[in-house]
Amino acid sequence: MIRFLGLCLFVSLLCTVPFAEARIRRYKWEVKYEYQYPDCYKKLVIAINGRTPGPSIVAQQYDTIIVELTNSLLTENVAIHWHGIRQKGTPWFDGTEGVTQCPILAGDTFTYQFVVDRPGTYLYHAHYGMQREAGLYGSIRVSLPDGESEPYSYDYDRSIILNDWYHKSASEQATGLSSIPFVWVGEPQSILIQGRGRFNCSSPSVESGSCNATNPECSPYVLTVVPGKTYRLRISSLTALSALSFEIEGHNMTVVEADGHNVEPFVIKNIFVYSGETYSVLIIADQDPSRNYWASAAVVGRNRTTPNGLAIFNYYPNHPRRSPPTVPPSGPNWNDANPRMAQSLAIRARQGFIDTPPNITDRMIVFLNTQNEVNGHRRWSVNNVSFEFPHTPYLTALKKNLLHGIDLNHPPNGYDFVNYDIYSVADNANATTSNSIYRLQFNTTVDIILQNANTMNKNDSETHPWHLHGHDFWVLGYGKGKFDMFNDPKKYNLVNPIMKNTVPVHPYGWTALRFRSDNPGVWAFHCHIEAHFHMGMGVVFEEGIEKVGQLPTSIMGCGES
Amino acid sequence: MIRFLGLCLFVSLLCTVPFAEARIRRYKWEVKYEYQYPDCYKKLVIAINGRTPGPSIVAQQYDTIIVELTNSLLTENVAIHWHGIRQKGTPWFDGTEGVTQCPILAGDTFTYQFVVDRPGTYLYHAHYGMQREAGLYGSIRVSLPDGESEPYSYDYDRSIILNDWYHKSASEQATGLSSIPFVWVGEPQSILIQGRGRFNCSSPSVESGSCNATNPECSPYVLTVVPGKTYRLRISSLTALSALSFEIEGHNMTVVEADGHNVEPFVIKNIFVYSGETYSVLIIADQDPSRNYWASAAVVGRNRTTPNGLAIFNYYPNHPRRSPPTVPPSGPNWNDANPRMAQSLAIRARQGFIDTPPNITDRMIVFLNTQNEVNGHRRWSVNNVSFEFPHTPYLTALKKNLLHGIDLNHPPNGYDFVNYDIYSVADNANATTSNSIYRLQFNTTVDIILQNANTMNKNDSETHPWHLHGHDFWVLGYGKGKFDMFNDPKKYNLVNPIMKNTVPVHPYGWTALRFRSDNPGVWAFHCHIEAHFHMGMGVVFEEGIEKVGQLPTSIMGCGES
Repeated sequence: MIRFLGLCLFVSLLCTVPFAEARIRRYKWEVKYEYQYPDCYKKLVIAINGRTPGPSIVAQQYDTIIVELTNSLLTENVAIHWHGIRQKGTPWFDGTEGVTQCPILAGDTFTYQFVVDRPGTYLYHAHYGMQREAGLYGSIRVSLPDGESEPYSYDYDRSIILNDWYHKSASEQATGLSSIPFVWVGEPQSILIQGRGRFNCSSPSVESGSCNATNPECSPYVLTVVPGKTYRLRISSLTALSALSFEIEGHNMTVVEADGHNVEPFVIKNIFVYSGETYSVLIIADQDPSRNYWASAAVVGRNRTTPNGLAIFNYYPNHPRRSPPTVPPSGPNWNDANPRMAQSLAIRARQGFIDTPPNITDRMIVFLNTQNEVNGHRRWSVNNVSFEFPHTPYLTALKKNLLHGIDLNHPPNGYDFVNYDIYSVADNANATTSNSIYRLQFNTTVDIILQNANTMNKNDSETHPWHLHGHDFWVLGYGKGKFDMFNDPKKYNLVNPIMKNTVPVHPYGWTALRFRSDNPGVWAFHCHIEAHFHMGMGVVFEEGIEKVGQLPTSIMGCGES
Repeated sequence: MIRFLGLCLFVSLLCTVPFAEARIRRYKWEVKYEYQYPDCYKKLVIAINGRTPGPSIVAQQYDTIIVELTNSLLTENVAIHWHGIRQKGTPWFDGTEGVTQCPILAGDTFTYQFVVDRPGTYLYHAHYGMQREAGLYGSIRVSLPDGESEPYSYDYDRSIILNDWYHKSASEQATGLSSIPFVWVGEPQSILIQGRGRFNCSSPSVESGSCNATNPECSPYVLTVVPGKTYRLRISSLTALSALSFEIEGHNMTVVEADGHNVEPFVIKNIFVYSGETYSVLIIADQDPSRNYWASAAVVGRNRTTPNGLAIFNYYPNHPRRSPPTVPPSGPNWNDANPRMAQSLAIRARQGFIDTPPNITDRMIVFLNTQNEVNGHRRWSVNNVSFEFPHTPYLTALKKNLLHGIDLNHPPNGYDFVNYDIYSVADNANATTSNSIYRLQFNTTVDIILQNANTMNKNDSETHPWHLHGHDFWVLGYGKGKFDMFNDPKKYNLVNPIMKNTVPVHPYGWTALRFRSDNPGVWAFHCHIEAHFHMGMGVVFEEGIEKVGQLPTSIMGCGES
């Protein structure tokens, strides 16, 4: 089969960009299982060119990225999502298995090609099964074109990705989640900072030979700074589960970017980062330069049993491995949601960089987030519908009218607002699974209210970071309790809302978003907690499918086509 | 895509069979990861309809088997080989990934359909990556048509499959094998009899919660017998590695069938079974009926560290769980190859059921079996060529003339017979990897001499059970040392050689086979040790490709087509 079409399309895309210097950046990646020691514990990881996190993509705005990916897994397929890249004109390269493409077969080579049309901090990661948890992820850093500069200044630019790490394989975890009764893998063994953590190898449960505390792969990540200089630190999270608080001992951070958008600067001691979010903070190396400092990532929102992830903030010329003389910061109280809500509310678009949202919406959809049981299986649901994938990926099925495998019923636009008690364990007896989708009228304004509720455990409501593919959305507001459809919209921030692609829904709270359905394609919108999406916590939007160009045959090969 | 064609072809096949009562037997299988406790240790297995071994296929000669297989693995593909079924007229349903079909995608349903045209004992198992080791296997039992009977009599018919079992996953093992330096998983943790073994849960290396000695899944297999009755016991092996000796304490066994062929009966105390072989033995329940007896499977050919696999030979009405009062048989000396060679030589075709081989051959190929290093990787090779798969499965590539991905050089017909020292560690500096194949003239007689040699360790030569797809072969002879092309053929048994599909090559020995290239298709011939084939110990034969009918599109979808 011809694996790639549409180069002509890209040529025409390139012609529309205003900068003649846009470049093509080519990457050749081999995806393969390897034994590694990210937290000193020997584990099979899915590496790219031998590395986890994989190689960073570093580009300038308007560049074209070409990734030629060879799947060298023995029996497993793969797909990679370019998280935060809107894929305007290339919806087939969003990398979401089951939504925009078939998986890349074991042994096959697949070429992704897309334009990074905005500066900022983005991510890439597996979007198939639960492979992201196996270490298949990395960062995308898009800088401004030559001659342009950010509205803030810094001397150096650094990136870290935070992650949580499990010693059980993704297959083991997924099998547990699908079992009756449901088996939960438990809290992560480690928090990784830029792929490095530290498990206690001398714990009694460790099999001999399976943990090596002296392996250089698990020596702490070192961020070396020159005294007096200002650092732009790009901090993102791809945790499977954990919400994190990141801080650098004794140093303030000024938040300047969120998900690729300029933030009206504000200063914090610690930053809360949810899975799928990216931030840039400015840090001045203005403390006593005779010592090193701890950088620490602590779990919040769950009663943490996982030790904090630690890195070393190293003042040059101190030895980079020299331990700071202090006890690492323990992080905020795990169960105090107030500072997390406060940070959410503090993130606003920067003056001079405000993209004003439409004043009114064309459609409002409320998504009640619940945990429930469907046919004996533990699931997560949206308005009591638990997402499942169709046999043929939506993009192909919808574009080619192969609809008989898709539930054509309209999924619900809301829930029983009046009677549903979000504070108690609900019966949710009518919960069901479906692959039905939300079809949005093209070029309209859509509001989404994410409404949190109690889980199946008493007095428990989790934090869910929701991620939208193919778009950024305005974050109009956050609130506690049940969203009030009449009064809460009056409090929306329509003046300077930040645009993001990932946003948390706080425990027992709601989050209101607005976006324009202006990107022809089929787009997933889901909780970024790997297990939650696997258990059905997501929806799919279609918009302007008739405007989607000819699909490359390379995305096909499963289901019908 | 249309997933199945060729029903018309089957209809015509059915018309040629002499028995009008041939039936269609349909199976619906779901292949899925599950946690199970085959040897009391909790492990992710690949189960069929929740079971490992999977459901038995029980049919009569000339029946058509239809297996509708749904792959419910999350990210892994699958393929199933019907071991011993020659697939006359249906070479595309042999189930050998990379040779006769693309893998069945995660989420897909694939239908195998073939005729079981001979009575006997056969197997099925995964033939993709190293998935067989994950528990994806089962038995096929084909009886004679109604009114016909075997040339021996028995009261009851029972089947067991022997296997070895590893606590590390197939992915972990395969990753180790492909690493530089090569990492060997080590000896199996357990020997399973019909899917049941017994690991020592109280061993200190066992993580708490991962082993349950009281789980009923690992209670020993019980073979209940009525005193005085005669049992046909079908014994087969699908070990990943181990050659086994099986015996039932105090009971003789009369060998009557091997790989679907009647054997001139002979009596033994213990039977050696190599991976891929099937036997039927007759056992008379003629011992003291007041007690139970041990059935025991012991590793031979390797310095065994794995405890013997045990089952209970239960005399009714003793309690089936009552332990025999004796110490289980320890099995023969692991390093005495003489009785193994003696058994090989004892297996002859039964009088009255002799299929006489052609007296002379049209082509002779010698396959030197060596272990070597290619580009830093530990490999197994045949005539210094280590097998690797092409991107497009051979059957599709050859039938459709998509040959540019296949090495069209002729692989070697032999090795340096004069100078090669099979008793020492060889340099094998010219060893290479290739996907070249042996193209056989259709309807000719082909002799294969499998020549064993020293491994990369001093004074070490392993046993390799070679399995041929699509054919049975005559076993013309076995010998010690280097095959003598002038004198050894004179000693061939051309009178009553057994026909088999799997045959051992003994340490430092040779085995001579003859077959007719009369089955249009593309057929693998390989060492049945899972790791050895994975490391290149195999070849592929093509014969009469032009006579192969139209390929079903369901076997395509990877590489080119």
